[in-house]
Amino acid sequence: MEKEYCRDFLVDFGDDGRVLIPVVVQDFVTKEVLILAYTNREAFEETLNSSLATFWSRSRNELWKKGLTSGDFLRVKEIRVNCEQNSLLYLVEPQGEGACHAKMENGKAFSSCFYRKLRLDGDILEFL
Amino acid sequence: MEKEYCRDFLVDFGDDGRVLIPVVVQDFVTKEVLILAYTNREAFEETLNSSLATFWSRSRNELWKKGLTSGDFLRVKEIRVNCEQNSLLYLVEPQGEGACHAKMENGKAFSSCFYRKLRLDGDILEFL
Repeated sequence: MEKEYCRDFLVDFGDDGRVLIPVVVQDFVTKEVLILAYTNREAFEETLNSSLATFWSRSRNELWKKGLTSGDFLRVKEIRVNCEQNSLLYLVEPQGEGACHAKMENGKAFSSCFYRKLRLDGDILEFL
Repeated sequence: MEKEYCRDFLVDFGDDGRVLIPVVVQDFVTKEVLILAYTNREAFEETLNSSLATFWSRSRNELWKKGLTSGDFLRVKEIRVNCEQNSLLYLVEPQGEGACHAKMENGKAFSSCFYRKLRLDGDILEFL
């Protein structure tokens, strides 16, 4: 049976499958938002086949199975699609100790890439 | 004091301020992911000034203060930025009954745009 769902049904990856769709990655248990990344059709199908979140790296222009170098794989428990079918939400169980490539002072990875709050102080926006 | 933070410090909206940055919008209390939208510099500054989530509509190519027509304003309680400073996370308190323009059968708006789960059944991906 042909996998026609990507093109015709779910999200539009384009005729060549290379259109990038943003993916919000959220911890299935804690509900923390971990990452905003991108997928094309190849990365999406690899995610479905392996149940491990796989993205398309815009900087390296290659398939990026999250955790392959760090061990911080993200097991996908649930996939949701938005109203307009142009973004995805993956609910995941982190298999390692963190999700971000940035490290805390103790050398451990941050659990989320969104580890910096901003504060508006008058006209100045500061990191907290 | 000049507002130099957008260009120099936080995220790169480009020289003309029109580069679009994805924004994950999450409910401050329930942690539900509500929307994935986009901001440019103008929409970001309007968000800071009004404390109401304001985006750039890609389809209408105009400033989009969420809730202006529906009443479903989103009050921004916290702003976070990711490691690479190319995406934002807004933690919000919905001021109306929903966040999505799509409506349930009873006519009320869905609280989140990500209201459809997907199920992989063999080779077929279905909405749940």
